[in-house]
Amino acid sequence: MTNDRLIEKTITTEPVFSGKVISLQIDTVELPDGSRGTREIIRHPGAVAVLAVHEGRLLLVDQFRQAMGRCELEIPAGKLEKGEDPMEAARRELQEETGYRCGKIKLLHSFYTSPGFADEIIHLYLAEELTAGEMAPDEDEFLEVIEASFEEVQSYIADGRIADAKTILAAYIWQLQLAKPAGSVLK
Amino acid sequence: MTNDRLIEKTITTEPVFSGKVISLQIDTVELPDGSRGTREIIRHPGAVAVLAVHEGRLLLVDQFRQAMGRCELEIPAGKLEKGEDPMEAARRELQEETGYRCGKIKLLHSFYTSPGFADEIIHLYLAEELTAGEMAPDEDEFLEVIEASFEEVQSYIADGRIADAKTILAAYIWQLQLAKPAGSVLK
Repeated sequence: MTNDRLIEKTITTEPVFSGKVISLQIDTVELPDGSRGTREIIRHPGAVAVLAVHEGRLLLVDQFRQAMGRCELEIPAGKLEKGEDPMEAARRELQEETGYRCGKIKLLHSFYTSPGFADEIIHLYLAEELTAGEMAPDEDEFLEVIEASFEEVQSYIADGRIADAKTILAAYIWQLQLAKPAGSVLK
Repeated sequence: MTNDRLIEKTITTEPVFSGKVISLQIDTVELPDGSRGTREIIRHPGAVAVLAVHEGRLLLVDQFRQAMGRCELEIPAGKLEKGEDPMEAARRELQEETGYRCGKIKLLHSFYTSPGFADEIIHLYLAEELTAGEMAPDEDEFLEVIEASFEEVQSYIADGRIADAKTILAAYIWQLQLAKPAGSVLK
């Protein structure tokens, strides 16, 4: 999968910071022409996100995001716990953040969010056969659930209340699903 | 846009690291219930990415990504330079990374890549009326251009050579565009 003409060799790795969510290291690399460069790299445990539509409405979570200094509407998501199976994590996050349990769940995509500087990967699942229940957010997590029609989701994207890659991606996948004939399933 | 019941107040900001691409700070915040928490925050200058289809083939860049330790196929993208207009940056990155110049360009979406820990925003543009020319990558940037049919893009997503959020999002936008009647334009 890796093109030999483009490969960078790691010469040294300098750990800079290790926190509760992310860690930061500076790698010195040998570039393909033999010269050296540095790369600032964030390590992240990985995360899951869930596309879940209940009675024609997308489940969204309203949450304050300190990095942006404002609230955002995002699909339910959260970090992987150590050793946790991503599909179980997706079921857990859906239930903790929205109260909904799902009968069926399947992986749609696994993608890197910021390949230029971070190894964060998000596993995006489609959850179906939803049944309502009690939310159980983490103790430092304050959020509200919003169930939005397709038109509302489009308006939230237009006005910037939805402004993150995973949620906009989920909206496009939903749009394609809606465009298919009844009874068809997402491939 | 911000829900008062969810707001977190910044109490202190501790700078930890300032690099050539990212910086890291630890914020202590007051949570909505009055308790305190910490947030590890990455600051990033923002970036642009370009969805460009030439004669039915998506322009992709093959590039080594140190964070993942392997090559990835991604749409052309790059960081904003200080004070740079995002649309000009998109034209610049398209030309530097692929050689193509575009007659028309328009913003599709601006999105945060990792709202849980980073303020990185990507402005995704649609570039049209492409004309080929010379590449001019940055001196520490080694890359190869690949022009891929829709079916090839789908196979690269399936086998993981395409594995980042912005490129998968671009592939869905392209798919929706292809599904529309001839002559229609992306809204």
